[in-house]
Amino acid sequence: MSEILAIGSYTETDMAGLREMGARVIASLDAMRDLPEAERGDVRAVAYKGHHPFGAEEMALLPALGVIANYGVGYDAIDVGAADAAGVRVTNTPDVLNDDVADLAVAMLLMQQRRMRQGDAHVRSGAWAGGESFALNRKVSGRRAGVMGLGRIGRDIADRLAAFKMEMHYHSRSEKQTPGWRYHADPVDLAASVDYLVVALVGGPETENYVSREVIEALGPEGVLINISRGSTVDEAALLEALETGRLGGAGLDVFNGEPKVDPRFHALDNVVLQPHQGSGTQETRAAMGQLQRDNVAAFLAGKALPTPVN
Amino acid sequence: MSEILAIGSYTETDMAGLREMGARVIASLDAMRDLPEAERGDVRAVAYKGHHPFGAEEMALLPALGVIANYGVGYDAIDVGAADAAGVRVTNTPDVLNDDVADLAVAMLLMQQRRMRQGDAHVRSGAWAGGESFALNRKVSGRRAGVMGLGRIGRDIADRLAAFKMEMHYHSRSEKQTPGWRYHADPVDLAASVDYLVVALVGGPETENYVSREVIEALGPEGVLINISRGSTVDEAALLEALETGRLGGAGLDVFNGEPKVDPRFHALDNVVLQPHQGSGTQETRAAMGQLQRDNVAAFLAGKALPTPVN
Repeated sequence: MSEILAIGSYTETDMAGLREMGARVIASLDAMRDLPEAERGDVRAVAYKGHHPFGAEEMALLPALGVIANYGVGYDAIDVGAADAAGVRVTNTPDVLNDDVADLAVAMLLMQQRRMRQGDAHVRSGAWAGGESFALNRKVSGRRAGVMGLGRIGRDIADRLAAFKMEMHYHSRSEKQTPGWRYHADPVDLAASVDYLVVALVGGPETENYVSREVIEALGPEGVLINISRGSTVDEAALLEALETGRLGGAGLDVFNGEPKVDPRFHALDNVVLQPHQGSGTQETRAAMGQLQRDNVAAFLAGKALPTPVN
Repeated sequence: MSEILAIGSYTETDMAGLREMGARVIASLDAMRDLPEAERGDVRAVAYKGHHPFGAEEMALLPALGVIANYGVGYDAIDVGAADAAGVRVTNTPDVLNDDVADLAVAMLLMQQRRMRQGDAHVRSGAWAGGESFALNRKVSGRRAGVMGLGRIGRDIADRLAAFKMEMHYHSRSEKQTPGWRYHADPVDLAASVDYLVVALVGGPETENYVSREVIEALGPEGVLINISRGSTVDEAALLEALETGRLGGAGLDVFNGEPKVDPRFHALDNVVLQPHQGSGTQETRAAMGQLQRDNVAAFLAGKALPTPVN
């Protein structure tokens, strides 16, 4: 019997924080469906951590539900329209993870272009000691970079890339205040104008395959695509084909369609850096995300203003 | 019979450029020693690419020598004192490689802290798809970074790290004009004040083991050492011991004592990023370095001012 239901796989610290608030912690939406009706009826707040769709059907199982506090800035798993209709508030954890995600985006780009995975293996394997030379790579600083989606994370990425003396371009729903960065209303036009394209779009149906086959082709055989947003924002079939045939130079990917079940065709590619969706995966940031999630739950139950509302 | 002798392993582009100037290209100092005395007597300019010591003895073998144009910014292989005594000018290739070296320094730091080699392997091995979670790492942005040696490369590194919102510290022979970065006259004091220490010292006997056991101990079990300078600047025995025992958190190393014969104890370490001295290893930068080397040779032979003299 608890009015707070926490769903997902939490760290010990978060688990302790949630239990201290009196939350019941369960592993998944399936476990939620299995709860007795009476227990579901008590739930006023859900702390949600997961990527499985949380829609009208799930909300209907929790008749007293007032808030879904999402762990993460991307809340595309939650049907906000259904939440609106059911009078349910949704919150997320923005901003606290921007630095980490931007760090990883820049790091994937550098690691891809300087072939650092291969460089490390060249040393560890003894190939270097044995006299094998390591091929020259491409210079990163001073190149042309484009950010697709200049929200708060996109801006943090762009600020870092600018310190690498890059010529900065971006595409966004509207033109933004920038230090003279070039705005492209058309995503294909952006891709054609840069060497590196970093995808920082929000997820969800509106941006599905936004990085289309045409965008990928426009980026071209010397271009590199970095994605730290959602697997869904990129046409993954077109991406794999372009990477396999050399029509795209390379990629750095932290997110994938159907993750963690990554298409095994990625495993065979030498021109990609693959990361296990660890954009916000640091101790510091995950602790801050958990705290912000709990702050939203606590504010709702206390009848106070939600710190970071979505709707 | 040539007045230009190019010594070292050059790319095809550089080889073509050198031959166009009329240079004779040989592989090593040993090959130079094997040349007939008459041919050695013709040599007025050496284009040198290598890390084997070029001292008084080698200079004496080239009685008409007037300039040694070094390929690379670090000219610690060349005995400049002996060159002075013999009336030989020395040049290097500064600045054109600063961006690449700074890029690699920042990239090694990010890759080490976010465990990106391990992250890539976690995806490629199928471990992630199989449900294994990837451990949380440490946040990079916002931490305290120190640069040891704030020359031109050190400054380029510091400028990039500052864009990651870091608190910047440095040690140098003298205090420099900076945007409020904290100067430490003592290297141990610098190490004790930061989370990350990036070594950008010049090489040579004066800086041998400058990053001493005490500096490494002061950096400590959460600290990370990045070295893009020369293997000689770091007490490697102390470094290995600290990395193996956890008294130093981690390292990113592009340079090693006795490279490319890296101490195999490095191979076994999970907390280090190893790179095969590829700091300046991009097509763009190596081409610029070769051009600058040839420009120095050409200026000397034409009796013009040397573009980038050392002495």
